[in-house]
Amino acid sequence: MQQPNVRPYLITKSLSPENQETPIPFVQSDRVDKRLFFKRNHFSYPHLLSSSLYSLEIDGSVINPIKISLQHILKLPAKEVHTVLECAGNKRGFFRPKVFGEQWGKGAISQGVWRGISLKTLLQFTGLLDIEKEVVFIGNDYGKTTNSKQLHYFARSLPIEQALHEDTIIAYQYNGNPIPFKHGFPFRLIVPNWYAMASVKWVKRIEVIEKSFDGPFQCEDYIYYPNKENDAGAWPVTTKNVNSTIQKPLHMDELDTGKHIVKGIAWTGIGLITKVEISLNNGKSWNECELITTPKPYQWVQWEYEWNAAEKGEYTILSRATDSEGNKQPLIAYWNRKGYGYNAVDQIKIKID
Amino acid sequence: MQQPNVRPYLITKSLSPENQETPIPFVQSDRVDKRLFFKRNHFSYPHLLSSSLYSLEIDGSVINPIKISLQHILKLPAKEVHTVLECAGNKRGFFRPKVFGEQWGKGAISQGVWRGISLKTLLQFTGLLDIEKEVVFIGNDYGKTTNSKQLHYFARSLPIEQALHEDTIIAYQYNGNPIPFKHGFPFRLIVPNWYAMASVKWVKRIEVIEKSFDGPFQCEDYIYYPNKENDAGAWPVTTKNVNSTIQKPLHMDELDTGKHIVKGIAWTGIGLITKVEISLNNGKSWNECELITTPKPYQWVQWEYEWNAAEKGEYTILSRATDSEGNKQPLIAYWNRKGYGYNAVDQIKIKID
Repeated sequence: MQQPNVRPYLITKSLSPENQETPIPFVQSDRVDKRLFFKRNHFSYPHLLSSSLYSLEIDGSVINPIKISLQHILKLPAKEVHTVLECAGNKRGFFRPKVFGEQWGKGAISQGVWRGISLKTLLQFTGLLDIEKEVVFIGNDYGKTTNSKQLHYFARSLPIEQALHEDTIIAYQYNGNPIPFKHGFPFRLIVPNWYAMASVKWVKRIEVIEKSFDGPFQCEDYIYYPNKENDAGAWPVTTKNVNSTIQKPLHMDELDTGKHIVKGIAWTGIGLITKVEISLNNGKSWNECELITTPKPYQWVQWEYEWNAAEKGEYTILSRATDSEGNKQPLIAYWNRKGYGYNAVDQIKIKID
Repeated sequence: MQQPNVRPYLITKSLSPENQETPIPFVQSDRVDKRLFFKRNHFSYPHLLSSSLYSLEIDGSVINPIKISLQHILKLPAKEVHTVLECAGNKRGFFRPKVFGEQWGKGAISQGVWRGISLKTLLQFTGLLDIEKEVVFIGNDYGKTTNSKQLHYFARSLPIEQALHEDTIIAYQYNGNPIPFKHGFPFRLIVPNWYAMASVKWVKRIEVIEKSFDGPFQCEDYIYYPNKENDAGAWPVTTKNVNSTIQKPLHMDELDTGKHIVKGIAWTGIGLITKVEISLNNGKSWNECELITTPKPYQWVQWEYEWNAAEKGEYTILSRATDSEGNKQPLIAYWNRKGYGYNAVDQIKIKID
């Protein structure tokens, strides 16, 4: 007989703003259901005005500023991007020493198919003046940031080259349906190789600028600060690091002796995952895993390793991914004050009993 | 304008069996909604047979064994118990050194109103032979335990005195509705002052016995084992320890200077909560909190402390409850191999910025 409706839910980290992570050990699909897609907000949800709801403004250093409707965009050639979106703070809770901010576990990551239009196509309508440097994306969500009395819209910029990359899209669908309100309806920028702060939700306006954008989510947050006490050596968060997560077994599980499938996912920002290894002895030796899905740009691969656990005892299991750019997960994550880009080898402990 | 449906969900620890914890920082009610009541299972959900579904057998060392129907029980005098149910493994994930088993956070606890019939009333129907020692409660759920090829029903016993306590009830309602299937429909034993492993779900049979019950959930699990390597000094898990949880702020929050309400809950097994203190300086000094609900047997109290956070910096905040039996939360939890009864002072760290 079937078990009654046994299913995971989003894991709430805060409600104001609403931050919830994907229950990643229980995700099997490479197109995460919208109900299990992680939510990361800086502010309350925006109040979309019907007048501006279904159109997008593009202005700034362009030849022809435009305001284009969703209806119009839907008639233009569509582009689909099947991609991981990973919050820059994914796994922040694992940094030692601990850092402040949302204590994300391993689930500030999801994957699915975004359909929309290449930003490049839209910028062909406006034309560029050849003096532009960056493109700024302004969301409909706004509020106060800590330490500031000023209101800010959530806004981020991309260098012009990244903005013109053919896979940088203005999406209007997720997994074949209109983007859910909480994930950016009606328009979400998708930058598949960057951490997800770049994929601005509820985009209302796009501005081409001739200098560097200096909004707080560009110049205060989403910066790697190597030092606790000062800002020396800071550099911006951009593309995703190579990374992997063990989905099964679960941390601190107790298992019987015998065969067990160790499984998980691995992903990277630029290039392809080429290898995933696991260690069953806390790094003394490594075994290559089977990649059970084909590595593709932007997507996670699913990997497995069949382990014959013959001997009772405690085991520390590590997973380590390598990508086609030659990047490999480090044993210890690069500590930074705001806790971005954690990508140390994943680690669980289990007991065979 | 109202925010769209921002709400927490159960936090999934495992799906097989289904173990999910209450998102405790976001619980305001003293009658936790059934959708947010933590789930802790040892096995798959039982397949209730319609023939035996609505009746309860009581046999063993009794004068008149009975099989009593739900319809009959509903006609008898009802007893309501408003109580905390707390898993013995609540907060297990905070033990250091870490222990194996479900890594519960602070949410393997819920509270609500259970309505049913005193077990004592039912045992008046059967009569007792005066040679009985314990009463065994057998659930409909069964399966294999780790390390054993044998099938076991989930079954637990109570000493006869505890079984005859007037607040030990066979419940058939939770918060005014039939008990949800996943929480023990149609009959759940409720033992309000014990940890929740005693509150057997899906009770199908009650057996009065003349000796000590030796099932695996009585004699292997739910035992405090003080040593990692052997069973010396072991003793059974029974009543809940005095305990408290900080609900707000959240661990690793960054807050502005100014006034903040620190709030949470405190509870105990026997007696009443008499005092909750918080420390804003990692235990150097303590401040008494306001109890904003009246302490009542079995229930958690809600407490608050208004803090004027004038100085920027990092703060370690502790909460410590004391009960009318003179029990006070220790600074360090009593370590035991299976990780039961964690009740160290609760601790969060925050930053005023």
